[in-house]
Amino acid sequence: MSSVFGKNIKIAIFGQSHAEVVGVCIDGLPAGEHIDKEALADFMARRAPGNASFATKRKEKDAVEILTGLVDDTTCGAPLMAMIRNTDCKSKDYSQFKDTPRPSHADYVAEIKYNGFQDIRGGGHFSGRLTAALCIAGGICKQLLEKKGIEIFSHIYTIGDITEPLFEQIAPEKNMLEKLARSHFPVLNENIGQKMIAKITEVQADCDSIGGGIECMVLGMPVGVGGGMFAGIENHLSSAIFGVPAVKGIEFGNGFSCMHLKGSENNDAFCMTDKEVKTASNRHGGILGGISSGMPIIFRTAIKATPSIAKSQKTVSLSEKKDTHIEIKGRHDPCIVPRAVACIEAATAIALYDLLLTSKI
Amino acid sequence: MSSVFGKNIKIAIFGQSHAEVVGVCIDGLPAGEHIDKEALADFMARRAPGNASFATKRKEKDAVEILTGLVDDTTCGAPLMAMIRNTDCKSKDYSQFKDTPRPSHADYVAEIKYNGFQDIRGGGHFSGRLTAALCIAGGICKQLLEKKGIEIFSHIYTIGDITEPLFEQIAPEKNMLEKLARSHFPVLNENIGQKMIAKITEVQADCDSIGGGIECMVLGMPVGVGGGMFAGIENHLSSAIFGVPAVKGIEFGNGFSCMHLKGSENNDAFCMTDKEVKTASNRHGGILGGISSGMPIIFRTAIKATPSIAKSQKTVSLSEKKDTHIEIKGRHDPCIVPRAVACIEAATAIALYDLLLTSKI
Amino acid sequence: MSSVFGKNIKIAIFGQSHAEVVGVCIDGLPAGEHIDKEALADFMARRAPGNASFATKRKEKDAVEILTGLVDDTTCGAPLMAMIRNTDCKSKDYSQFKDTPRPSHADYVAEIKYNGFQDIRGGGHFSGRLTAALCIAGGICKQLLEKKGIEIFSHIYTIGDITEPLFEQIAPEKNMLEKLARSHFPVLNENIGQKMIAKITEVQADCDSIGGGIECMVLGMPVGVGGGMFAGIENHLSSAIFGVPAVKGIEFGNGFSCMHLKGSENNDAFCMTDKEVKTASNRHGGILGGISSGMPIIFRTAIKATPSIAKSQKTVSLSEKKDTHIEIKGRHDPCIVPRAVACIEAATAIALYDLLLTSKI
Amino acid sequence: MSSVFGKNIKIAIFGQSHAEVVGVCIDGLPAGEHIDKEALADFMARRAPGNASFATKRKEKDAVEILTGLVDDTTCGAPLMAMIRNTDCKSKDYSQFKDTPRPSHADYVAEIKYNGFQDIRGGGHFSGRLTAALCIAGGICKQLLEKKGIEIFSHIYTIGDITEPLFEQIAPEKNMLEKLARSHFPVLNENIGQKMIAKITEVQADCDSIGGGIECMVLGMPVGVGGGMFAGIENHLSSAIFGVPAVKGIEFGNGFSCMHLKGSENNDAFCMTDKEVKTASNRHGGILGGISSGMPIIFRTAIKATPSIAKSQKTVSLSEKKDTHIEIKGRHDPCIVPRAVACIEAATAIALYDLLLTSKI
Repeated sequence: MSSVFGKNIKIAIFGQSHAEVVGVCIDGLPAGEHIDKEALADFMARRAPGNASFATKRKEKDAVEILTGLVDDTTCGAPLMAMIRNTDCKSKDYSQFKDTPRPSHADYVAEIKYNGFQDIRGGGHFSGRLTAALCIAGGICKQLLEKKGIEIFSHIYTIGDITEPLFEQIAPEKNMLEKLARSHFPVLNENIGQKMIAKITEVQADCDSIGGGIECMVLGMPVGVGGGMFAGIENHLSSAIFGVPAVKGIEFGNGFSCMHLKGSENNDAFCMTDKEVKTASNRHGGILGGISSGMPIIFRTAIKATPSIAKSQKTVSLSEKKDTHIEIKGRHDPCIVPRAVACIEAATAIALYDLLLTSKI
Repeated sequence: MSSVFGKNIKIAIFGQSHAEVVGVCIDGLPAGEHIDKEALADFMARRAPGNASFATKRKEKDAVEILTGLVDDTTCGAPLMAMIRNTDCKSKDYSQFKDTPRPSHADYVAEIKYNGFQDIRGGGHFSGRLTAALCIAGGICKQLLEKKGIEIFSHIYTIGDITEPLFEQIAPEKNMLEKLARSHFPVLNENIGQKMIAKITEVQADCDSIGGGIECMVLGMPVGVGGGMFAGIENHLSSAIFGVPAVKGIEFGNGFSCMHLKGSENNDAFCMTDKEVKTASNRHGGILGGISSGMPIIFRTAIKATPSIAKSQKTVSLSEKKDTHIEIKGRHDPCIVPRAVACIEAATAIALYDLLLTSKI
Repeated sequence: MSSVFGKNIKIAIFGQSHAEVVGVCIDGLPAGEHIDKEALADFMARRAPGNASFATKRKEKDAVEILTGLVDDTTCGAPLMAMIRNTDCKSKDYSQFKDTPRPSHADYVAEIKYNGFQDIRGGGHFSGRLTAALCIAGGICKQLLEKKGIEIFSHIYTIGDITEPLFEQIAPEKNMLEKLARSHFPVLNENIGQKMIAKITEVQADCDSIGGGIECMVLGMPVGVGGGMFAGIENHLSSAIFGVPAVKGIEFGNGFSCMHLKGSENNDAFCMTDKEVKTASNRHGGILGGISSGMPIIFRTAIKATPSIAKSQKTVSLSEKKDTHIEIKGRHDPCIVPRAVACIEAATAIALYDLLLTSKI
Repeated sequence: MSSVFGKNIKIAIFGQSHAEVVGVCIDGLPAGEHIDKEALADFMARRAPGNASFATKRKEKDAVEILTGLVDDTTCGAPLMAMIRNTDCKSKDYSQFKDTPRPSHADYVAEIKYNGFQDIRGGGHFSGRLTAALCIAGGICKQLLEKKGIEIFSHIYTIGDITEPLFEQIAPEKNMLEKLARSHFPVLNENIGQKMIAKITEVQADCDSIGGGIECMVLGMPVGVGGGMFAGIENHLSSAIFGVPAVKGIEFGNGFSCMHLKGSENNDAFCMTDKEVKTASNRHGGILGGISSGMPIIFRTAIKATPSIAKSQKTVSLSEKKDTHIEIKGRHDPCIVPRAVACIEAATAIALYDLLLTSKI
C-alpha cells in the first residue's frame, strides 16, 4: 500500500522530485502489444511544463526511457520498467520547509509520518513531479485501451469562477474530441478557454494561484465491465484518481446535482437505439451498480489551486513551536489544471485497463 | 475483487436480497477487543427500515448473529463471521425485471455481465440490503476506532432543494454531535430537518423519490495516518464509500468549491493552538498529501434518489428488443439518505480502521 | 493476510473448532456454474472422520449449508457462503492447555501472539476442523476444474516406514485413478495399503500416532497456466498447501531427489507424441519456469504425526515457569493422513482454479 | 500477479537477461533506515558469477545503483528503486531456442503462454539473472532484519551424492555461522565441501551439470510472527522461495522425514531454558501453526541441476512438429547451488521482513 496500484496489472511508481529519476514498473501487461513510443511522447508532452506562458519554469525534457519489458517495442510478458531522469533540480530551494511547513502541502504530515526522514527536496515523493511516472503508465494503458476501441477525452470545465458547458450539454462531434486530445489547454468553447487563460495570467501576476475542474468522458467501454460493491468502476477509478495530487473531489454522471433531483427526474430510461440497448439520457454517467452500461462514462474532478504561492503565508516553526511566516520562492505553476488533464486521463486509463483485464474464464 | 475490501483487515461481504442471509467475514481483527453487541445493535438500528413513516415497508429484525471469531464477546484472532437472516422476502415481485430492466438499477448490466445467471430477486447482491452486512463490519470497526479516541459523526445536509449548514459553518459542540449519533434523521438544524422530512413525505405521496447529501466528520484521527499516492486516505475512503449503492460523488474538505478559489484563499495556514500544530481553517478537510493532518476529516457524499419509483417509466424488453414501459410495485424508500447515513459511517469506519492498522515496525 | 487466499477468487475461511460453525466465503466465482451438491457431499465425506476404525471419535455430520451465492444450485456472480455447524463439541477437554501448552501444537505460539485471547477450545482456529471449510471451497473448485477437463488424483504413498510406488512408477490407468477418487484410504497397491492401516492400528493401540505422505497428480491442465517468478504454480500451490495443518514439506516432480542428479539425468527431453509436444519423462512434474507444461502436475507433501497423543509428554507451565508433564485426553486421529488427502486436493483445486482464472484479455 | 511479492512491503522485480537492466522497486520500507551499501555489495558478491573456477564465464560487475528512495543512504518513506546494468550480453547465442526449446527450460511454456512474444534472449525474464534483482531486495531486507537481531545462515548440504550434516546435527557456534556468511561455498564441514567442489569440477569436465540442496537457519525471530492457515511462515516463505528458479522442493524442520515418525518421536517437548520457554528438540523447525516459536527457523530447499548442458539433447522443432536434437552452447554454471545460496537467503529475508511488518495496533 503506497505507490502500488492495480489488481491484474500492478503499477509501482518510484522516484522523488529531486531523486535521480522518477519512473514506474508495470507488471502483468499482456505479451504481444506494440507500444508506440512517439504517441507516448506526445501524451507525456501534454503533462510537461513549459507549454504555456504561465507554466512552471522548471524545464524537463521528460524523455521516457523504457529499460525492460519490450522486445522490438512490443511487450514480452515481462514487467515493463520506464523512467525519466530528473535533470533540472534545484534542491537548495527547499531546506527551510522542514521546519516551517508550507500551508496545504504535505511537509508537516510527512515530517510526522516519516519521523523527519522524508525527502523534503521539492516535495520528495509527494511532488507533482511523480505524476510524470503516472503518465508513463497511463499513456501505455491508454494505447492498450485504444486498441480495444476505448477512448478517453477530457476538457477543463472550470477555472476559478469561469465555467464552460459539460459534455452532456454539448454532445461534441468526433473531430472536436480529437482536437481536445491534441490540445494543451483543452476546452469545448475556445472563447471561454481564452478567458480561463486570462484568469490564470491574472492570478500569476498577483503571485497567486487558482483551482479548476476537469471533466472526463470514456467512449467505447463495453457493457459489463466493473462489478458490485467494492469492485465497481467508481471505487477503482476514484482510488486511482486521488493518486493525482490536489484532487479534492470526484463525481460521476450528474454527480452532486443528483442530490436535488427526484427519482422521476434522475432516472435514465432505457431505449432501443440502432438495435442496441441505450439510455435516453446519461445522468448515471455510464455506470450502474458499479458496472459499465455501454453509455459514455462521465466524471468530473475538482483540482485545488497550487498551494505554492509567492505571497507571504502564516505557518509555524516546528522547532520553536511558535507561529511565523513563510514565503515560497521557486518555480511553480499558477494553475496546475491544464497539466493535470493528462494525469487524470492517465489514472483513468490505468484503472479502466486493469478492470478490463478482469478475467472471464 | 468484488465484495472483498481491505489491506490489513479483510472484509468479505456475502448475501443477496432474497438469499437466506446477508453477512460478512472479517479477517485480521486484533485479538482481545471486546465487542459491545448492544452498541452494535443500536448502530444497526440506525440503518434499519421502518424508523420513519416514509421508510420501506419491508420489515427485518436485522438481528446480528456473530457465529465465529469471539470468545466471551471478545475477539480471539480468528476471523469474525456475522450474519442476518432474510426473513421478509417477497420474491415474486421481481421476476419481470429480468426482461424489462428497471431504469437506473443494475438489472440490465447484471444481465449482460452474468449472462442471465444473476439473482434478480430483490436486486440480488446489488440490493441495498447488502449494506446491512457492511454495517455489521462498520459497526464493529467503529467501536474499535472509538477505543482509540476516533469518532465519526454525520448529518444530512441536503434533501432535494433543502440544504442545511455544513460542519465547518456550525462548529457543533460535543453534545450536538452525540445527538447526531443517536438520531435516525441526523441534522444540525431541526427546523430544516423538518422541512426535509416534509419534502420526502411529499415526493412519496407523488409515487416518487428524492436524493440528498451526507456530510461526515471524523474526530480524533492522529497525524500521520494514510500515505502518498494510492495509499492516501481519500483513495482508500472513496473506494470503500462507493461500495454504498447510490453514491454518485465524494468530496473532501471544501471539495468542488476549491475550483473557484485562489491559492491564497484556499490554503490553510498552520498555527500553534494549545501547544499543538493545527490549521486556522480546515478547507483541506483534515488530509494533506493523502495523510491525516490532525484536523477533523471532513467529506461529503451525494446520494441519488431511489431509482425504484411507482410511476410508470420507459424501458426496453430485452427479449423483444423494443421499447416498453414498466411500473415498479413493491416496498421502497422514497428517500434512502437517512438510512444511508449509517452505511456511509460504516464504510468510513472500515476504511479508516484498516489504514490505522498499517504497520509501523 | 490470515485465512484469506486467492487473487481472482478470494477464499475467506472462518470458524473455530468449538465455535457455532466453520465455513467459507468465496468471492469471484463466475456466474452460471452449476454446483453438484451431492458430489460436494461425497467429497466432504472423504475428509470426514469416522470412516475408519482408527479415526477420531468426534462425529460431525458435516452437512454443508450453502446460504448465499446460488440460485437453483447455480452460481449467480454473488459471493458464495457455505458453512457447517459444529454440533459435537466437548469444550471442557481443553481448558488446561492454556497454561501447559501441548507439544508441537499451536497453543504456546497462539498464547503469545494473541496475548492470551485466542480460542483455546479444540485448538480454536488452528484446529484441523477448519479444513472442513477448506474442503467446501476446494470441493467446489474441483467441480469447476473438472468442467474444464482438469482432474486431481491422490494416493497415500507413505505411512511411517511403509511406502508404496509413486505415480511415475506405476502410470495408473484411468479406472485405477477413479478408484482412488472414491476411496477413503487411497493407495495404488492394496496390499501395501493394508499394511499401512495395520501400522496405524498398531500405533493407536500404543496411544501414539504416525505421519505419512501424500502424492497428488493433476491431469488435463493446459499448457501456459501460471507464470514466472512469484506467479509460478509452485509458489501459489505451496502457499495454499501449507494452509493444511501438519504439512511439513512439499516437492514437485522428482523433488528432493533432483539434488542427486546430473543435468543429463534430470532433464526431460521434449518429444512429439500424438502430434503434441510432450516430454519423454516427467521429472519436472508438469511445471517449467512456474508454468504448466501440459504434462501431469505431480507433487508430494509430508504430513507429520498428529501431535495429540495420549502418552504423557513433557511441557511447561506458563504461569509457574517450570517444567511439567501433560496427558492429552480426548478424541484424536492416530493418523490424519487419510483425511488429509481431501484437504490437499481441496487446497490444490483452489490454487489451480484461481490461477486458471488469471485473465487473458 | 507475476513478479510482485509482499503484503506490507511490495517487491516488484523487473528486467530480462538481455534487457538494459534488471532491478527492483521496493514499496513500503519504513523511513529512517540506513542502508549499508558496502554490505549490500558484499551480499551481491555472494551471488555473483566468477567466484569459482567452475562458474559461468559471463562477467557482470553487478554494481547496484539505488536511484530512488534514499536520502543520505537512509530510507525516506518513498519507494526504493535499484538496478544493475546488463553489460555482457551475447544475444545471438539464443535465437535457435525459439523453435527448438531447451529441455527443462521455460522456452516451450513461454512460447505458448506469451504467443511467441516472450524475450527469448538469455531466457528473458525467466533467466537466473533476475535473481540479482531479488538479491538487491533481499540484501536490503536482510540488513533491516539484522537491526532487529534476526539473522539468516545457510550451507550447502548436498551436491549430487555428497552430503554433509545438517544444522541440527552440528549445532554450530557463532563463529562458524559467521564464516558461512562470508563464504562463496558455505559448508559446515570443509572436507566434505572440497569433495562437493571436486564433484562439480568433474561434471563440468563431462559437459554436464549437477543439483544440490541448501539448508537455511534463521536465528532471533521473536515468538508470534506469522499466522494461522494461509498467513503461516511456511506459506509466505515457500511462495517467495519458489521465486528462485530451479527450486523443486522445500521442507521445514525435519521435513519429509516426519513421514516416518510417530507422534511420540516427532513432538518437541517444551522446557524452561534460561527462564525462557524453549523446546528440547527442534523437529518443528521453529514454526508451530504457521507461527514462530522462538526456536531457530530451519528449512531446506532442493535445487535441480542447471538444465543448460553442452551435451546433445533430444527436443522438438515446434515449426516442423518433429523430433530433433539440440546442443546448448554458451556460458553456464555446472552447478548453480553455490550462487543460489544468496538467492534463497534473499527470498527468505524478503518474506520474513514482510511478515515482521504485519501490524499490531
